Amino acid sequence: MKVSIVGTGNVAHHLAQAFADSEVTVHQIYGRDEIEAEQIAAICNSTYVTDVNLLDIVDVLLIAISDDSIRAFVKTLPQKIKEECIVAHTSGTKPIGALKGCEHKAIFYPLQTFTQGLDVDFSNIPICLNGKSKTVKKLNLLAQMISGNIRYLSDEERKQAHLSAVIINNFTNHLIYLAKDRLDRLELDPTILDPLLQETIRKQKLLTPYEAQTGPARREDVKTISKHLDMLEGDDQLKELYQVISDSIIKIYS
Amino acid sequence: MKVSIVGTGNVAHHLAQAFADSEVTVHQIYGRDEIEAEQIAAICNSTYVTDVNLLDIVDVLLIAISDDSIRAFVKTLPQKIKEECIVAHTSGTKPIGALKGCEHKAIFYPLQTFTQGLDVDFSNIPICLNGKSKTVKKLNLLAQMISGNIRYLSDEERKQAHLSAVIINNFTNHLIYLAKDRLDRLELDPTILDPLLQETIRKQKLLTPYEAQTGPARREDVKTISKHLDMLEGDDQLKELYQVISDSIIKIYS
Repeated sequence: MKVSIVGTGNVAHHLAQAFADSEVTVHQIYGRDEIEAEQIAAICNSTYVTDVNLLDIVDVLLIAISDDSIRAFVKTLPQKIKEECIVAHTSGTKPIGALKGCEHKAIFYPLQTFTQGLDVDFSNIPICLNGKSKTVKKLNLLAQMISGNIRYLSDEERKQAHLSAVIINNFTNHLIYLAKDRLDRLELDPTILDPLLQETIRKQKLLTPYEAQTGPARREDVKTISKHLDMLEGDDQLKELYQVISDSIIKIYS
Repeated sequence: MKVSIVGTGNVAHHLAQAFADSEVTVHQIYGRDEIEAEQIAAICNSTYVTDVNLLDIVDVLLIAISDDSIRAFVKTLPQKIKEECIVAHTSGTKPIGALKGCEHKAIFYPLQTFTQGLDVDFSNIPICLNGKSKTVKKLNLLAQMISGNIRYLSDEERKQAHLSAVIINNFTNHLIYLAKDRLDRLELDPTILDPLLQETIRKQKLLTPYEAQTGPARREDVKTISKHLDMLEGDDQLKELYQVISDSIIKIYS
């Protein structure tokens, strides 16, 4: 199976690495910026092009560019590519219809947080596929080369999964930031929280988050909550968050 | 060093286990409920009493009962205990003054989330100590028997650490609950989020949470945020949280 990748960002980078690790042949990398395209190509030992008209026919063309560039980019693709290749994008939010004009359109969405320079283990990352059955069947073979966690989600289901991913990743990360930043500002060592954070996540493997919930809001301990809100006086952002999340916990358990 | 434990709840239970594992001699367990006291005593091979007047003189008496019971309980302690023992409580929020009348009052606060039936590895749990220097010195010997992570925090500092612990544990756990519960309600498999959650936490060891932040709010991608808010229509709790946390992230990065 021959695959080419469009894009030079985080997702393109990590896919190139995953394919290289799994001995999937990456035929070409496309990028507008030559230096960046060359860098990604070097990872997976492929060639690179900066002109869409130089893209060869492959089994799968993966479009890993920013959400809002997908539609415009697809319009520039040569007709033979649109007709003969599976063209799949990697966005969590854009519908499959963003690949308008492609005969074999599909989705290949890895649900994970990618950070430049931080290798990830793809073997367990959910790869969310969508498309016509024949297309998905072929894409499935490719996905299986890099992950053991393949999912079939409609556009609507994938959007919902993406929204939940924002909550479980972006929002928890922000809470970690706020908690540690506050200790930092108070000249207390934020690493005091690290074992607790590790345990918080370890517990998720052993209990449901409903069971794992502890703390003043879970107990509806309004005295402690009110003391905490007093302590957060002047720290408006955190105070509002504390109030809203505590209210939300109380609603669930009351 | 001889230690006795007051209480039969989660903290008492896990301390008894930690001492048993570290071959610290637990002399007595005190509990009002005989069956519960006997259960804890069995963990650490100690005896138990249900009458405070039967408490023997030990090096350290650890009071691991609910915050609001500490003051009243201390009043019932025999005078000889108050004079001769180090009396330390394990609360994150109550001041050392809650041990009024004790000659050698102190704090022995393990900053961790304890769940019944779920063993924890104490070796890395921060044990927060407070008290007069001679008292803390002795307590430090005890703390070192079960943990390599000893901290010295004033009442005010400990309260701040506890507040941050609520944010980093209780609140992140609630977000995990909300994200998974939503998928559940939509009849989507919530385990799709597990690898992402693991990676979210793994990243904390490699990056600061400030650097690790990704997502629509970090990019100030108001289009995606507004789409997500539309999707959350009718899911009022989550919608409010989404708005407040996104605003908070935008404020940090703008």
